[in-house]
Amino acid sequence: MADAKMPYSLNSKAVADATYAWLHKRGVTLLEIAELVMLLQQKYYPGLTMDECVHNVEMVLSKREVQNAVLTGIQLDILAEEGKLFPPLQDMIENDEGLYGVDEILAFSIVNVYGSIGFTNYGYVDKLKPGVLERLNDKSTGQVHTYLDDIVGAVAAAASSRIAHRKQAEREKDYGLPHTPEDSEPAANKTAPQDGEQPE
Amino acid sequence: MADAKMPYSLNSKAVADATYAWLHKRGVTLLEIAELVMLLQQKYYPGLTMDECVHNVEMVLSKREVQNAVLTGIQLDILAEEGKLFPPLQDMIENDEGLYGVDEILAFSIVNVYGSIGFTNYGYVDKLKPGVLERLNDKSTGQVHTYLDDIVGAVAAAASSRIAHRKQAEREKDYGLPHTPEDSEPAANKTAPQDGEQPE
Amino acid sequence: MADAKMPYSLNSKAVADATYAWLHKRGVTLLEIAELVMLLQQKYYPGLTMDECVHNVEMVLSKREVQNAVLTGIQLDILAEEGKLFPPLQDMIENDEGLYGVDEILAFSIVNVYGSIGFTNYGYVDKLKPGVLERLNDKSTGQVHTYLDDIVGAVAAAASSRIAHRKQAEREKDYGLPHTPEDSEPAANKTAPQDGEQPE
Amino acid sequence: MADAKMPYSLNSKAVADATYAWLHKRGVTLLEIAELVMLLQQKYYPGLTMDECVHNVEMVLSKREVQNAVLTGIQLDILAEEGKLFPPLQDMIENDEGLYGVDEILAFSIVNVYGSIGFTNYGYVDKLKPGVLERLNDKSTGQVHTYLDDIVGAVAAAASSRIAHRKQAEREKDYGLPHTPEDSEPAANKTAPQDGEQPE
Repeated sequence: MADAKMPYSLNSKAVADATYAWLHKRGVTLLEIAELVMLLQQKYYPGLTMDECVHNVEMVLSKREVQNAVLTGIQLDILAEEGKLFPPLQDMIENDEGLYGVDEILAFSIVNVYGSIGFTNYGYVDKLKPGVLERLNDKSTGQVHTYLDDIVGAVAAAASSRIAHRKQAEREKDYGLPHTPEDSEPAANKTAPQDGEQPE
Repeated sequence: MADAKMPYSLNSKAVADATYAWLHKRGVTLLEIAELVMLLQQKYYPGLTMDECVHNVEMVLSKREVQNAVLTGIQLDILAEEGKLFPPLQDMIENDEGLYGVDEILAFSIVNVYGSIGFTNYGYVDKLKPGVLERLNDKSTGQVHTYLDDIVGAVAAAASSRIAHRKQAEREKDYGLPHTPEDSEPAANKTAPQDGEQPE
Repeated sequence: MADAKMPYSLNSKAVADATYAWLHKRGVTLLEIAELVMLLQQKYYPGLTMDECVHNVEMVLSKREVQNAVLTGIQLDILAEEGKLFPPLQDMIENDEGLYGVDEILAFSIVNVYGSIGFTNYGYVDKLKPGVLERLNDKSTGQVHTYLDDIVGAVAAAASSRIAHRKQAEREKDYGLPHTPEDSEPAANKTAPQDGEQPE
Repeated sequence: MADAKMPYSLNSKAVADATYAWLHKRGVTLLEIAELVMLLQQKYYPGLTMDECVHNVEMVLSKREVQNAVLTGIQLDILAEEGKLFPPLQDMIENDEGLYGVDEILAFSIVNVYGSIGFTNYGYVDKLKPGVLERLNDKSTGQVHTYLDDIVGAVAAAASSRIAHRKQAEREKDYGLPHTPEDSEPAANKTAPQDGEQPE
């Protein structure tokens, strides 16, 4: 009934909310992603705080492209866990087949949101599997996180890129280079959502 | 029983076979994809034959990365058609939401297999929706082809790139430039599968 | 002297200024790029104004990744025009070799800044070469625009994506969907630079 | 005179030869790249030989897309070394500016030639800078390798992907899975150039 009256229309808030809800249901906290960011960035910015890392993870997750990739990946993980995909795809995703690669492609669309400077950070955490990534890669749980582990690494890499861009703006302000008031906002405590970002 | 004894191991032939089978089940023929290739390439190569176009489509489809993207995309289309995805993703894929974009990302991983020269051809057919693409975009059928229409355009664009590379090799041979015997094979009638390609 | 005292430090304003200056020197106006945007988007948004198109082009050009690609591409065009590249690269860029493809790769890094939904628009204008793109492709002038024509098409495609995201936010507001004050800003007349954007 | 008689025509062999020549002139040997491949792949394939690694590096370097990226990147490095780029670009490339990112974009077009499974390996070596990458990153030499170090890591990552695909074919043959004669060729000693590959 409701459907009959209500033609489809994208509801951005519903998509954003679902992204947070599904990350939570699949056992990943923003704090864990923020810890990956800290691991990647602390040597470049010794004063970096966990609050800043969490904030930047939130900003990445507020991007529509990121939400689409997160939801699609988690959906495929869940369907594989429930054995509901058709045969060769079911086997490849369930077993995190190394030659599958579509998980990396979705992850990359996340990294790309903040440009190419995140490529290296993504590859690095995806190889070393620190923190939450080690848990997501534990194949003994019965859970399938073929997409989610790459996605979490990609969100952390994108947040790292975002920090690098913001810190540069702060540095230029300190050097007295020409800047605009907007550029001088610190990397943390920036609450206004930005280009293509929906607020959390 | 068989499963218990047989640990997972990627079966490349099963993946290749499933790719062909699912394209067929979803109503797309190689000939229709080849017609897109002809449309894209005939002005550059007036002597291009449909046989060559079909052959190059087959070669694209024999690539593992292409198969993975085709299977993943068709699986998501089918699940959306059956209403089995979770809410905001279900709505976005079922309605081919313009701001979704993961379909384009998978399509792009197909085009990329033959390099950046296919980007333009992909965008062009995806915008104009000629031939089979028009049918796949008909929203009145109840079928969902949100992924498949982009995938079919991407396969045609990749086959076009493959033809461009091969025709160059033929041209260099005609000019008497140094080449190797392998390079002198015509773009058509080349039966040996190539780099990363599994034969059809 | 100045160099000896002043160690290297990225000056974002200098990079942004150079981007505008070089586009101007190479004969491309923001208005011409905005005309491509209008061509691509007017059928979706009949009320779209040239002011909005120009504004969105400016926002795209304020992104660091876009500036880096624009400057690198124009530099290679100029060096090819002056005959200063080493042989096979000189020939390929000077003659806009179809199998070169690095120009498309740079262009794509621009489109990607606003996500995958711009892929199609990029391919479409790059194939049809309307307006300014036709002039940039005129090989009889002695000028080399192998990179610039792809870059201009990519900026227009990215601006189109930006408009699509903004218009969705406006539409959701009109539907009374939950939103934040920031989301309700119109696509035009938005002056605050955004995420990763430096003001012009 | 020669120019007047000889219209431009792509000479694939000249492009391939220049790629090898310029890598050599910039001080990078195939053996050093092969050592990165060994580092990345030996834990997965204990029997992997240096001969196989060198062979797979050669196969990657025989791809047209790879050659175009290598030549373009080295050209920009050399021009930066000679101080011949225009100001903000000169500074960014000369100083390997972390927020520049076009070097990573070119590198990525190389990794992509063998699909998304190489993303991780690229990021990993690019972060850790083992072997030849450490030397290329030594900023005290006066040489500029802003592009080349990313390119070398990308070639190694692509060669790793190629090995992974080939080893799978060998494994399937050993398991008695259906295959074609072409698939059964070992990863090493495969001399026929392949799809889009020009022989060395």
